Amino acid sequence: LLRIALDVLGGDHGPPVTVEGAYSFIENNPSDTLVLVGDKGYIEDQLSKYPSQIYEHIDIVHAPDNIEMNDSPTEAIRKKKNSSMVVGLELHKAGEVAAFVSAGSTGAQMAGSLMSLKRIPGVKRPGIGAFLPSEKGLVFLIDVGANVDCRPINILQFALMGDIFVSDVFNASNPKVGLLNIGEEENKGNDLTSHSFELLSSQLPNFYGNVEGNDILRGKTDIIVCDGFVGNTLLKMAESVMGVLSKSIKRSIGNNLLTNIGALLVRPAFSELKRVYSYEESGGVPLLGINGISIICHGKSSAKAIKNALQVAKDMKSKKVNQHIANRIKVEDTENE
Amino acid sequence: LLRIALDVLGGDHGPPVTVEGAYSFIENNPSDTLVLVGDKGYIEDQLSKYPSQIYEHIDIVHAPDNIEMNDSPTEAIRKKKNSSMVVGLELHKAGEVAAFVSAGSTGAQMAGSLMSLKRIPGVKRPGIGAFLPSEKGLVFLIDVGANVDCRPINILQFALMGDIFVSDVFNASNPKVGLLNIGEEENKGNDLTSHSFELLSSQLPNFYGNVEGNDILRGKTDIIVCDGFVGNTLLKMAESVMGVLSKSIKRSIGNNLLTNIGALLVRPAFSELKRVYSYEESGGVPLLGINGISIICHGKSSAKAIKNALQVAKDMKSKKVNQHIANRIKVEDTENE
Repeated sequence: LLRIALDVLGGDHGPPVTVEGAYSFIENNPSDTLVLVGDKGYIEDQLSKYPSQIYEHIDIVHAPDNIEMNDSPTEAIRKKKNSSMVVGLELHKAGEVAAFVSAGSTGAQMAGSLMSLKRIPGVKRPGIGAFLPSEKGLVFLIDVGANVDCRPINILQFALMGDIFVSDVFNASNPKVGLLNIGEEENKGNDLTSHSFELLSSQLPNFYGNVEGNDILRGKTDIIVCDGFVGNTLLKMAESVMGVLSKSIKRSIGNNLLTNIGALLVRPAFSELKRVYSYEESGGVPLLGINGISIICHGKSSAKAIKNALQVAKDMKSKKVNQHIANRIKVEDTENE
Repeated sequence: LLRIALDVLGGDHGPPVTVEGAYSFIENNPSDTLVLVGDKGYIEDQLSKYPSQIYEHIDIVHAPDNIEMNDSPTEAIRKKKNSSMVVGLELHKAGEVAAFVSAGSTGAQMAGSLMSLKRIPGVKRPGIGAFLPSEKGLVFLIDVGANVDCRPINILQFALMGDIFVSDVFNASNPKVGLLNIGEEENKGNDLTSHSFELLSSQLPNFYGNVEGNDILRGKTDIIVCDGFVGNTLLKMAESVMGVLSKSIKRSIGNNLLTNIGALLVRPAFSELKRVYSYEESGGVPLLGINGISIICHGKSSAKAIKNALQVAKDMKSKKVNQHIANRIKVEDTENE
């Protein structure tokens, strides 16, 4: 009975990959309907590759324009009214779908989601969360770029929203929340983090304390909260690690016969590692705090990533993440008065 | 004719490693003198391992106290007057040595250097630079923790000081300076970076523009400038990458016989990589902007790292880095008036 809109034009690989992702989601969720938003011709072309039963689970909404990566986000949202991004978000605003998923321009999706769907009452600023692989499983980092100039209240709200999202959608019980800082001690940090520490200590029962840059990949806490500038930089650096190391390893291996044989034998283990640390397969991440469900996918998303992102959208709806956020923020507001 | 003070007590490995580092520096620089600062008994114990000619190149200054890692930096500097850190910095202040090198508490060394040696006139805030390995060689990141709340003028001065240090000591000609930001475009960023962009564009001829988190390990520019909070977090994350990946690789390899043989064969290549990305062997980093030479070493420094740090101290002196900084900052000041 659930309907989710998918931006078919967004993403570096375009309709072949987004439609494949849609198909695999439908295979696993045959009672749901996907609304594919984009150029009708392109979409029908791609759908013809799959068994015709898929049409029972698919609606198409024609939206021929695409917002390009180098378009100015807010300008594109205002001017490209026939873009798959704007049309998809308007469907969500009108209540025709329960969620919107896109691998298009992240900036445009943020701006458009905020303009169309507004914020959950009480939420000062939305935040984007992202999963990073760690020694102990995935770590949820929030904010990774929605807000680059933050106040302590924003940091607290990111922590609360991340806590609810991870608990509801990933069934984590009482996840630990760490504040990214430059030292472990309470009095460490810059202006923002030292004030945020006080607020988190008093408002968040599962606040762990400060964590540092070297704790992220070690998975010291389940959730790490930081401002969007720091989070964005860390996420991008983490994304580049495997690519850079692969090249360095190839160079170190060079033309030595034995190390070449070794590399061949060890390849399956390394591919597994690359898969874990790769962002092309990971599902979408939510823009938390808006009054709706808008899932942001990596531009390089594979079909599997699109399928996973649709699943996250479905789970956010069925687990009532936004109601929980609204209740929690309301409670916080009352306590602060 | 050069005299450099070395804090023998600082560092996780203590006198055995610091004295070994001193010995290898002397081997390569037989006309220089090292002043070993620390507990006299410990130092003589260690020196007895080496040929007695080393005494011609060594002076010992007794300083029995050590500043511990969990001491409050400023308090320790004020109270532990007989610590190797304070005594070493006082020798530098008195002009008895040209530089001071320590692998002890970074916080205490920063605070102590600033208190004893003061700033170069015109420098608003000192900055700490650090080298990160990249695809294209080393990248110099500044600031990595001296200043966590910055203004654009601090960012500009970090860039100027980094530029001079890398050019003078590492013979880089016209190194490219990138501003760490969350997008490539000029108008991107938070309050600090968008204003810093303007200042760097107008004041720094070799300013490259914005670089992002994924450009750091790719070596897009020779120097990357950022505030100390972001730099400290990135440096610590980078430091943890190899450890985390080694563990993950071991886990992926598991008990499979072929991948185990492969791992054995590929080990030399991997060790080489680990060496490149390891911080235990890299030399010290300068606290730039103070009116003296204070080289900060990683707590885990090996003897080789200590030797390299002493070499950096010597080069900073002989290449007149501080005079160049003073001249450049004075010029900037005049231009800004």
